[in-house]
This record gives sequence, structure tokens and C-alpha cells, in this order.
Amino acid sequence: MKKTRMTTSHSNPTTAFDGLAAAMKEHRAAIDARLERILPPADAAPAAIHQAMRHAVFAGGKRLRPILALMTCEMCGGDAALAMPAACALEMIHTYSLVHDDLPAMDNDDFRRGNPTCHKVFGEAIAILAGDALLTHAFEVLAKEPANSAAVIAEIATAAGTQGMIGGQVMDINSADLPPDADLVRSIHERKTAALIRQAVRTGAIIAGANAQDLASASDYGEKTGLAYQVVDDMLDREATTEQLGKTAGKDAESGKQTYPAVFGLEASHKKAEELIEQARHSLAPFGNNARHLCALAEFIVARKS
Amino acid sequence: MKKTRMTTSHSNPTTAFDGLAAAMKEHRAAIDARLERILPPADAAPAAIHQAMRHAVFAGGKRLRPILALMTCEMCGGDAALAMPAACALEMIHTYSLVHDDLPAMDNDDFRRGNPTCHKVFGEAIAILAGDALLTHAFEVLAKEPANSAAVIAEIATAAGTQGMIGGQVMDINSADLPPDADLVRSIHERKTAALIRQAVRTGAIIAGANAQDLASASDYGEKTGLAYQVVDDMLDREATTEQLGKTAGKDAESGKQTYPAVFGLEASHKKAEELIEQARHSLAPFGNNARHLCALAEFIVARKS
Repeated sequence: MKKTRMTTSHSNPTTAFDGLAAAMKEHRAAIDARLERILPPADAAPAAIHQAMRHAVFAGGKRLRPILALMTCEMCGGDAALAMPAACALEMIHTYSLVHDDLPAMDNDDFRRGNPTCHKVFGEAIAILAGDALLTHAFEVLAKEPANSAAVIAEIATAAGTQGMIGGQVMDINSADLPPDADLVRSIHERKTAALIRQAVRTGAIIAGANAQDLASASDYGEKTGLAYQVVDDMLDREATTEQLGKTAGKDAESGKQTYPAVFGLEASHKKAEELIEQARHSLAPFGNNARHLCALAEFIVARKS
Repeated sequence: MKKTRMTTSHSNPTTAFDGLAAAMKEHRAAIDARLERILPPADAAPAAIHQAMRHAVFAGGKRLRPILALMTCEMCGGDAALAMPAACALEMIHTYSLVHDDLPAMDNDDFRRGNPTCHKVFGEAIAILAGDALLTHAFEVLAKEPANSAAVIAEIATAAGTQGMIGGQVMDINSADLPPDADLVRSIHERKTAALIRQAVRTGAIIAGANAQDLASASDYGEKTGLAYQVVDDMLDREATTEQLGKTAGKDAESGKQTYPAVFGLEASHKKAEELIEQARHSLAPFGNNARHLCALAEFIVARKS
């Protein structure tokens, strides 16, 4: 399997990645600064819950979802600053899902991004409540910002709910130890991971005031990129070390999870991820050079090592 | 301690209760019918999560919060039908909090309203996710209904968050086995229980288009009634049987919880509940006869036996 950076006919990847790296770094700093302001202070009462929320949020995440929201907003000609609160809300929703997924009753993970998971530090009760609080706070932030229409708030809730992220996690749990099934694994991944990533992209586009055609193109990019992201995650769980991942490697196979490598093998999984990214990039063709960062980001997602 | 229906100088309690009982029954039927339509069907995929959500929601709750929202909307001259989606959202938020509070890592309760708790039937993982899904679905329902302003959605999130319901649960957990403390128990109860009950009342008033003065009066009623509700809950945990309560009696004392009886004793706690209800009723004086149901409901809350 190819382990080096991808090269395609569409771009000079070194240059594209360099431009992307700078843009990502800038966005990430702005996102972290805004999350810092948006989250309740660590010493505000009751302190335990605020510390647990911050532990989870500031554990060194890639900020993929908020970056996608901001970059899509810019690609569609919008002001990224207007999308920042929604971008942070999406990161809080993603983080709450990790806190709950890591619980002993779910995936029972002791490490996340190289740090002890929320329940290892604060206990299970506070970890459950910290997840609840991040989800609740996300909707408070969304509702307080005039740039977020009721329609976009409803879409985010749908993407995070039983037809999206939560539904995917349920299917993931209930499908463990079933025979590997191509339709099933795609359906799980579309809900568990792609739904919220697609929603991050849609949110940026909607806040930018994108027309229906641009919104559809961006949505398609988000869906393909989100699916590719999870395919690569599956592969990394098999191929990378716990140290590289910052979380326990090899857990999927151990727990009999439905994964792309389990269904198709590693070679074919890598090919599928590349195909998805190719389709994602193709979706953005109408945006021309304005899509350069998102195209590079899609490639980065397949090339990542953690 | 008085165990019969309260009588006060303000009303003929039999008549008031009879009128209230009919109004509550009517509202409850409408709320249940709307929840039935609002919740995903039990056979929709992934079915496990939808069944768990329905198990929790249709376990025979009193529907106090949605009834308060609808009755307040009517008292303020509004159309209760417009407040119905928000009323159902408040019930879903309340229900999610019960599902998570009952988990082994929290209060570890096997029964709720006489039925096995969600995690006893569906397992802990699905119970955690069902709680998450109810909270998420509540905000989806809120955002989809034009009658709910962004301001009311934000208020509901605040009341459910770390300055409200979740914060109260955290304080409740972290204060167990501390010496009984009057300020502490009031602060816990204001957050854990009164915040969402007050918010139900505010939501009904806001959707009715109440002016600032009426909203303040209604808020005050909600806060006092909410606090009285939890004081009575504390007393019932001591005095009633598990059969009467439909949940394990005597758990608060066993787990060293901060309660009104622990701080003040049963007699004084009952007196405090009556005082709070008196204050709640007084808050509604400006609404005259339009407040008759809410006044009777406040009395009902102190007189209840389960």
C-alpha cells in the first residue's frame, strides 16, 4: 500500500499541501481561540464539569470539521468570521460524541489523542455529563448567533441524530461480530462519520449564502470526503501504532467491527479512499481556484498518518 | 405532617383540583399524541435507538413541564398549539436527563415510573445514546418550528446546561456525603429541577408574546414551583414506598444526598414547600382568573403522593 503523499494529475501536491498547511494552521488557531472564549471558564462553578469539557475539547484535535466549515464558507464567497460560532458548535458536537464513545459501556478507550480519556480523569458520571453539556452548549452557541438560521440549526441536529451520527454509532455497536458486509459498512460510515463532516461543509456554504447548485456540489464533496476519512481511519487502526494514533490501535479488529479493510482488504480500501477523494475534488470543479484548499484538504485526509 | 390535600384561603381546592384534573388530562393526551408523531417510529432503522427513546418517553410521566408550558401560554393569552412543539422538546430534554441519571455510573436506578430503566432493557450503550438522541431531537424539533425564536431556543439550552440542569446534577453528585447545608441544597435544587421547570413556564409565556412584566411574573411562579417540586420529591423519597413512587424509595438518604429533609427535617420541609407554593401563587395575582389552573397545579405539586 502506498504510504507516501498522494500525487494526482490535478495539482502540484507539495505546493497545495504547503498552502493548505498555512491555511489550516491559521484557522486552527482562530478556532482554538474562539473555543477558549465560548466554553465556560475552568474555574466557574460547578468547576468539575467545565474542566471535563475543556479536557475533551483541548486534547489536540485536528479541528477538521470547523476547518471544513470555515474553508467552505470562504470558497462560497462568504465571511468565515460569520461561520465561526457554528464551526465551534460542530467541534463541540464531535467532541461530545468522542467522550461518550470512549466510555466503558461503549468502546472503552483509555486514551484519545495521546491523553487519558475524559472518564479516566474525571470519572464516568462527570464524563457522561460533560458530553451532555458539550452537546447542549453547542445548541446554545448556535441559537445565540444571528448568522445561524433555524434551518441550519435543524440540519445540524438531524446530522447529529439517529439518522446521522448517533444512528451510525448504534449500527456500529449492533453490527460488531456480524460477517463483514459492504453495504452495511458503507451505511455505518456514512452515518457515523460522513454525516457530520458533510454537515460542516453544508453549514459553511449555507452561512455564505450559497445558491442551491453550489450547496449541492459542496454537500457532495463533504459526503465523499467524510466517507474517505472513515475509510482511512479504519486503515490506520490496522496499520498505525497506538503511539502514532494517540489512541489504542487494532481495536476494530479486536471488537469485530465492520470496517473497510475487514470487508475489502487494505489494498482495495486504499483504492476506495482515493476514488472517493477524486470524486470529492471533482464535485468542487465549479468553484475553480477557490476550491484549492478544500481539494488539498481532501488529499491530506487520505495521506494522513494519524 | 399533613398528608391530606392542602386547603388555603385562596380557593376551593376540590373545585380547583377538579378543573385542573380535566385540563391536565386533556393536555396530557394532546402531548402524548404529539410526542407519538414527533419521535421516530419504533421500527425505523436503527430500531434499537428509537425503541429505547420511546421506552423512556412513554413510561408514564406526569408531563409536568409540557403542561406548564401549555397552561402558561394560555394564561398569557397565547395559542397553546403554537407552544406544543417546544413543550414536547422540554419533555424530551427532561426524559434524556432521567435516562442518563439512572445509569449505573450515576444514580444506578433499576426502576423509573414503575418500569425497568432504559439501560436495564436496552443495555448501557444504547441508553447513553438514547439520552443523547432525545436531547438532539429536542433541538431539532425546536429549530424546525417557526414559533420558537432563536432566543427561546438559547434560553432552553442555558436552562438545560451547566448553569442549570446539568450543573445541578454535577453538584448533586459532588455534594453527596457533605454535611447537610441549607444554601447548598437550595442551589442544587434550583439548578437540577427548578431551572427547567421555570424554563417551561417562560417558554409558554414567550411563545404567547407576553410582555416583560408578565414574563417576569410567570418566571417567578416557575422558579418557586420548581423548587417546591424538588422539596416534595425529597420528602417522598423518605416517606413514600417504592411502589407508590415507581422508583426506589429511600435512595437519597442511602447515598448521602443533600435534601431538604436532611437539612431542615420533614416538618420544616413541608412548611417550606407550602411557603414556596404560596409565593408561586402570589406571583400570578396579576393574571387573575386566567391563572386558576396554574395556581391549582402548584397546590397539586405539594399535595402529590408520587
